[in-house]
Amino acid sequence: MASSSCSSYGIEQLQKGCYNEWMSLQAKHIVDLKEALTSQRSNRNDRKLEELVGKIVNDFQKYTERRSELSHRSCSSYFAPSWNSALENGLLWMGGCRPSSFIRVIYALCGSQTETQLSQYLFKIDENSGDEHDRGGDSMSDLTSTQLAKINELHIKVTEKEDKISKKTAHLQEDVADMPIAVAAYATDVVEADVSVEDALDKHEESMAILMEEADKLRFETLRKIVEIVTPVQAAEFLLAGKRLHVSLHEWGRAREERRVGCARAEDVAAARGGAGKSNRSATC
Amino acid sequence: MASSSCSSYGIEQLQKGCYNEWMSLQAKHIVDLKEALTSQRSNRNDRKLEELVGKIVNDFQKYTERRSELSHRSCSSYFAPSWNSALENGLLWMGGCRPSSFIRVIYALCGSQTETQLSQYLFKIDENSGDEHDRGGDSMSDLTSTQLAKINELHIKVTEKEDKISKKTAHLQEDVADMPIAVAAYATDVVEADVSVEDALDKHEESMAILMEEADKLRFETLRKIVEIVTPVQAAEFLLAGKRLHVSLHEWGRAREERRVGCARAEDVAAARGGAGKSNRSATC
Repeated sequence: MASSSCSSYGIEQLQKGCYNEWMSLQAKHIVDLKEALTSQRSNRNDRKLEELVGKIVNDFQKYTERRSELSHRSCSSYFAPSWNSALENGLLWMGGCRPSSFIRVIYALCGSQTETQLSQYLFKIDENSGDEHDRGGDSMSDLTSTQLAKINELHIKVTEKEDKISKKTAHLQEDVADMPIAVAAYATDVVEADVSVEDALDKHEESMAILMEEADKLRFETLRKIVEIVTPVQAAEFLLAGKRLHVSLHEWGRAREERRVGCARAEDVAAARGGAGKSNRSATC
Repeated sequence: MASSSCSSYGIEQLQKGCYNEWMSLQAKHIVDLKEALTSQRSNRNDRKLEELVGKIVNDFQKYTERRSELSHRSCSSYFAPSWNSALENGLLWMGGCRPSSFIRVIYALCGSQTETQLSQYLFKIDENSGDEHDRGGDSMSDLTSTQLAKINELHIKVTEKEDKISKKTAHLQEDVADMPIAVAAYATDVVEADVSVEDALDKHEESMAILMEEADKLRFETLRKIVEIVTPVQAAEFLLAGKRLHVSLHEWGRAREERRVGCARAEDVAAARGGAGKSNRSATC
């Protein structure tokens, strides 16, 4: 890691670029998956669907590998990326989503599809329509007990591994209160960091990057194992749902923030005109 | 929580204001603690020191209570505050420092003082000087075995409580992949959030705020218990060390970021002039 030298700077721009590329690729994945699932309903072709799923899993692996490479050059920015909304940063675990949330996507999808099927059965509202959840008997709501047992087992293992990584992170975070970082801080009021402090902070960032790489591997492995357990149609539905959730959370978070900024500005204008908005705001804190 | 309505906006500015006030107060605390410790060495006055420690603990309680009040109005921004450097955000646990790191401050302080005393004893370099760590037999390196046992016991309990809060957070983060947020995301590509999604996101933020309040209470309780276990001089040394560490990390993180931005700009200038810097950067990603 060379974060002390000028040559490693601009790295955050590279990280942001990688993220933007990944988001564009996800948008393409969503279109591809939708098309493939629609065509599968009229003309079953498991092989083609399997290829698409394999390609998407492969793209995710490449993305995590690029992130890891970049995080080893500077890791801190991944723990609260400037390109995320506050909502997303509040959901962050080790610079990304929790691997266990992939499994929750399956449970939720399975439950919502079952619910839809049940209501359709009860109210007979969709008897002749092209219902996407009722074809071929291999959508998410048709998970077999063997598949569900495997998913449950995976959930337990993934949660255990998440806990281990979280504990290692906790130790690293505590270590910052230890020497030589601490001694430098306790010894003097001069807030300029000396070489030993810069070295210690670089080492801390590098250790965090190693843990982030571990977390990224766990994210990828969880995805790969899920895809192994389920059928190609289920895998495509799962990937589509996960990507829609990711993209939606990004958009929702951004919209909530824009509304907040817009409202804050409106309050400032009101305050400038009549003083009411401003006095309201400053009275609270 | 009223984050959907305009009246709650501008809240991030209030949160930032509260933080800035707290940082200014910490700078004052540092001056007060240093003066009190110096005066204690020439004219022992445990009562006066005790009063100052009590006041500072009280100030911390007030700060955490204000944070809690503000976090209930909008919580997300506390999980990666814009007023923190990336370094600090990478160290964040539940919108602040880990309570267990307070105890690591004691261990580090205790160790560094013992080391200083040992080297002074071995090399006799400081025989007649006014050594601040060798007066009165009640500085951090003079912690009794009873005190250390109590601190160890507290460390274990605090770590357990941290783990519990972390687990609750993990569940909350996983829940986002569940209904109704998930169903809305899975069901359609329209990325506009409907009322049920906004309600679910508001509820999620409120649950995170409750957990953050729990974490803030744990931070305060840990501080209070440490101060109860140690002597007034030790408490003052501990508070001074913790505050110096906090302020230093803030400054170091900011300096590292400024250097990064400065270097990125220099690279851009070089790229504009000769194209070398730019091609170097884009070749990596």
